[in-house]
Amino acid sequence: MKPAPAYSRSAVRRVASGEEHVDFDDVLAIEEPLEIRLGFSKDGRFSHQAISITMRTPSDDGDLAAGFLFTEGIVRDAGEIKQIRHCGLKIGKGGGTLDRASALNSNTIRVDLNEGVDVDLKSLERHFYTTSSCGVCGKSSIEALHTGVTKLPDHDFRVSSDVIHGLPASLLQAQPTFEKTGGLHASVLFDSEGRIDTIAEDVGRHNALDKVIGRKFLAGETPLNDKILMVSGRASFELVQKALMAGIPILAAVGAPSSLAVELAREFGMTLIGFVREERFNIYCGGERLASET
Amino acid sequence: MKPAPAYSRSAVRRVASGEEHVDFDDVLAIEEPLEIRLGFSKDGRFSHQAISITMRTPSDDGDLAAGFLFTEGIVRDAGEIKQIRHCGLKIGKGGGTLDRASALNSNTIRVDLNEGVDVDLKSLERHFYTTSSCGVCGKSSIEALHTGVTKLPDHDFRVSSDVIHGLPASLLQAQPTFEKTGGLHASVLFDSEGRIDTIAEDVGRHNALDKVIGRKFLAGETPLNDKILMVSGRASFELVQKALMAGIPILAAVGAPSSLAVELAREFGMTLIGFVREERFNIYCGGERLASET
Repeated sequence: MKPAPAYSRSAVRRVASGEEHVDFDDVLAIEEPLEIRLGFSKDGRFSHQAISITMRTPSDDGDLAAGFLFTEGIVRDAGEIKQIRHCGLKIGKGGGTLDRASALNSNTIRVDLNEGVDVDLKSLERHFYTTSSCGVCGKSSIEALHTGVTKLPDHDFRVSSDVIHGLPASLLQAQPTFEKTGGLHASVLFDSEGRIDTIAEDVGRHNALDKVIGRKFLAGETPLNDKILMVSGRASFELVQKALMAGIPILAAVGAPSSLAVELAREFGMTLIGFVREERFNIYCGGERLASET
Repeated sequence: MKPAPAYSRSAVRRVASGEEHVDFDDVLAIEEPLEIRLGFSKDGRFSHQAISITMRTPSDDGDLAAGFLFTEGIVRDAGEIKQIRHCGLKIGKGGGTLDRASALNSNTIRVDLNEGVDVDLKSLERHFYTTSSCGVCGKSSIEALHTGVTKLPDHDFRVSSDVIHGLPASLLQAQPTFEKTGGLHASVLFDSEGRIDTIAEDVGRHNALDKVIGRKFLAGETPLNDKILMVSGRASFELVQKALMAGIPILAAVGAPSSLAVELAREFGMTLIGFVREERFNIYCGGERLASET
């Protein structure tokens, strides 16, 4: 797919106390909606359904769509996907006509599944309407919101603390747009030696993670059980959940984790690390994977 | 409603390069799901429907629910709401029985509308499934995603640059949990002199804003056309949209705005300010409301 720019330009006035203001052109992280549609065949008939709209930074839309479908448990194997393509209608006087240029840059993407692939659209419902009775609670939601997550194997993957200390510098070096706009989240997969494997940026941190996981999923490289995931912001329940779906054993965040992120990581055997900065970090659970901390 | 703690405690190991690790108890921002249900009467019969699950920090759930319904265009006036209450089922051997203690701390909240109030559940669909045909784009989504937003009046409200320079210090002082956990977003309403009017915190920045707006909405104090809104993170499309629904003329963010946030603010006459820190800020649009910048 055609690469899209991750930022645009805007006229900005900078105001500083005790100084004359300065007018200049600044760069902004691009945010646009992406509609993800699922195409499937049933009883010999093809149909498609919109399943999500997310506000994302245009780029790697195919990875994002595939990652979303995989981390939400809609698809399980890259072989279930027939094709992924942008679609777009050019609205003209003569009615809607397909236009190749606008299709390439469109904000709608369709993931067509192979004939006979059965999808469980019910698992999507937690994002949308829900029909559950009263009584959702933190504990039960951990069970209810997860179908398909299995506990990570013990002691399967170890890294040294020095590798963790080195991640922020590598992330910063590999994230050019963030430096320009201050407006993008990054998700990065590292190997056990701290070398960058895959990186993605987005205005939405869940999108950045879906892009990274989706790229590996489409390449047939999931589960990612020998990778460290680093995220630029905080670690939420949703990010831990998506990382677990991809089998990632270590999640390191620049910011703080939430209570439910720690509970979920602990329950499924993930190593969760926060405040990774300035040669320091906090281990919230799963410290046995850090070789020097046993 | 019973105030809930915004943070919990967790055992943490702090690792620093070249030092012995330290085990201690750290505080974590609480993240739990909240299901928002809408109760309504039609043809003399009462029914209720779950309309959203959001991952939020428990506190001010009633404000959050009301703010969500208002900023999404589901309710327009506080007089439409009959009551807001938590609901919960204690699941026991004898079946589900209501339990007052668990109801007070439950993660389900119901907003009952008055008899005869008509709600437009269709406007919720953009969060969930959508049935629109292909062709969503940045421009059209600004129109499509907004029903009920009207352009802000020109030159109605002015503040001095010094007031803006003073906001970060006031925010930091008023946000005790963030200092503890580093894990909560804040939304704060200031008056034209920079005095704090309303503040809310949450793991989700959209929730923090819904809590602030919902509290004013329930008090009958919307539109908020003489208030400055400050948010602790970045300014996204969603935050600008919610602020516009509440008639807020000035949005100031500690972080960067996205491209679509600027486009939307410009189109509807909002003043959007970013990178408010260290006696500096950037004006992206609507500079005429800053008295010293005309």
